[in-house]
Amino acid sequence: MDISELSTPCLILDESKFKKHCDEMKKKCRDLGVTLRPHLKTGKSHEFSLYQMETPEGPATVSTLLEAENFFEWGVKDIIYAVGLSPNKFQKVLELIKRGCNLKVILDNTETAKKLSEFCKANNTEIKVLIEVDCDGHRSGVKVDSNELIDIANYLKDGAQLTGVLTHAGDSYRCVGEAQCRKAQENERDSIVKAANRLKKAGFNINIISAGSTPTAKFAKNWDGVTEVRCGVYCVGDLVMAGVGVYEPEDIALSLLVEVIGHQKEKGWIITDGGWMALSRDRGTANQKVDWGYGAVCDVDGNILPGLLVKGANQEHGIICSRNDNRLKPEDFPIGTKLRILPNHACAMAAQHDHYNLVKGRNVISN
Amino acid sequence: MDISELSTPCLILDESKFKKHCDEMKKKCRDLGVTLRPHLKTGKSHEFSLYQMETPEGPATVSTLLEAENFFEWGVKDIIYAVGLSPNKFQKVLELIKRGCNLKVILDNTETAKKLSEFCKANNTEIKVLIEVDCDGHRSGVKVDSNELIDIANYLKDGAQLTGVLTHAGDSYRCVGEAQCRKAQENERDSIVKAANRLKKAGFNINIISAGSTPTAKFAKNWDGVTEVRCGVYCVGDLVMAGVGVYEPEDIALSLLVEVIGHQKEKGWIITDGGWMALSRDRGTANQKVDWGYGAVCDVDGNILPGLLVKGANQEHGIICSRNDNRLKPEDFPIGTKLRILPNHACAMAAQHDHYNLVKGRNVISN
Repeated sequence: MDISELSTPCLILDESKFKKHCDEMKKKCRDLGVTLRPHLKTGKSHEFSLYQMETPEGPATVSTLLEAENFFEWGVKDIIYAVGLSPNKFQKVLELIKRGCNLKVILDNTETAKKLSEFCKANNTEIKVLIEVDCDGHRSGVKVDSNELIDIANYLKDGAQLTGVLTHAGDSYRCVGEAQCRKAQENERDSIVKAANRLKKAGFNINIISAGSTPTAKFAKNWDGVTEVRCGVYCVGDLVMAGVGVYEPEDIALSLLVEVIGHQKEKGWIITDGGWMALSRDRGTANQKVDWGYGAVCDVDGNILPGLLVKGANQEHGIICSRNDNRLKPEDFPIGTKLRILPNHACAMAAQHDHYNLVKGRNVISN
Repeated sequence: MDISELSTPCLILDESKFKKHCDEMKKKCRDLGVTLRPHLKTGKSHEFSLYQMETPEGPATVSTLLEAENFFEWGVKDIIYAVGLSPNKFQKVLELIKRGCNLKVILDNTETAKKLSEFCKANNTEIKVLIEVDCDGHRSGVKVDSNELIDIANYLKDGAQLTGVLTHAGDSYRCVGEAQCRKAQENERDSIVKAANRLKKAGFNINIISAGSTPTAKFAKNWDGVTEVRCGVYCVGDLVMAGVGVYEPEDIALSLLVEVIGHQKEKGWIITDGGWMALSRDRGTANQKVDWGYGAVCDVDGNILPGLLVKGANQEHGIICSRNDNRLKPEDFPIGTKLRILPNHACAMAAQHDHYNLVKGRNVISN
């Protein structure tokens, strides 16, 4: 089937670009002597994940317990659920572990550590825990030098079992260019290694030392002391990552196929059937040097049309404009014209769809 | 079940508020002598729609053909698909009509009208069409006074059949207060009636004269000449609508239940498990007088906590801060605390979930 025969709007994955990104990251991690534990939150699909992972059983990272459950049912066993665990999810974690999933959880405070150990003892079980460490003040995690790091560990001796430390250089998304990204990576690496060493010195067994984000993983030259790298969006890329300098827009493997459904002639707008329900509401490039609105515009073959962007998005309508306020001519984009829109944020666009259509050139391989 | 027992993050619908909004809009439309054709895009569920519609068979409005198909399978017959039709969707429309759905479509240009009529003739069928009219330059639609209005109609005599006109006062979302909304409503009404009269004068049968958005429907005093009103988000409300002056934040029927999973103590942040995957990326209040970030914060009973907002959202993490930059105290929000977040845009939040949990007070009626 030719791509133009697909019903719009729909998600397109370019197989060659996707595989290239996966292959490169696998090689990079092998070369640097770290395990790749890819984040599966972008694709959320079995096929996608099989190519990302080193083996069908993992290792892998997920961002929800529903993802953990689905991937476990697809055969993935070694999983880190990399969002701070909270009490209402203890039971679900226990269920997955009892079913045979080698699920590990993270937390960053003594309250949760204490409650989880009590829960484990009450249920006569063990749950493996990584302490989440904050390397850059971005979001969550305990400070590397804090007393709380050791306090938390002390609650993870009996019931809940400390097995490692984990961090995420979330602020690397604000970097621009290789030098800044590498600096973020060195900080990420040094922070998590320091946290691990503090815990080891205090007598704890630290088997997993986990770090990584797409910008830091992409530009890393040395992961000494780190055992594994987690990254997610590297496998497809997006316009935010292009703004960070990780990829060129031409490298982006994910796009939305849309159809021209009308024109606002006086304004020179092209109206498509790809609104924010299909694009997502993500405006991640708004604060970057190049603001892509709701996405960059390509022809049906995936060639970027310079100077165009999706300037507005309603629920089911996309509005394509010229960046320099030239009016677009309706005759250049007749009704029925197919276009492809590159995402600001691939994870956000992918989350709006229940499946993707895999293409090789214009040929739809699976849908 | 008590609301606090639900697994988080999850979508909550307050039954009393929802029913009150539905009842009020039904009454308002009856009082003004117009048919209510509710937009079902917010709830996307059978239960939700049954209470919105005047009868289980409709009339109703949808924004995708997938919605049309689902609602038709649930027994809804009288449906307008209110997004400009494009050629790759003709076949799906035909299928639904052949299965017995009284589906009507909209378009705003001669190209699509011509193609649709040719498609109908080739398939020996008729498809009912409303011409989309642009009343306020917001998005799509043909201008009321344009020659194209009549040109389009001339393509809808044979095969595709003109049955009405439709408009949407999209710019009313930028209004603030009753007076501005009423002005938008009067313009919406006068524009669509004028378009209908031009077509009638030219000899066309115009059975449906369709208008309406939540702000204009809410404040309308007179719909003379209009046959039906479409609105959607009125049934739940959201913070954008509160900014427009349609509802108070306290009236909002939809919210996200989240759990506190951590604290960023030095910054005074509260971290929850409700990130943008659950909240949506919508920042619709960003340009309003009161910017709610990613949402307003309520206690588990739904009482608004003044001065708090979801200032940041990552994929699976929400960051709650004080509006005046006071640090929030971890002890006021212990790990495991349940909170409810009111949406900027209800349709966007609802679209992130596959179902909602219906509550009456704290009691979960269905989940």
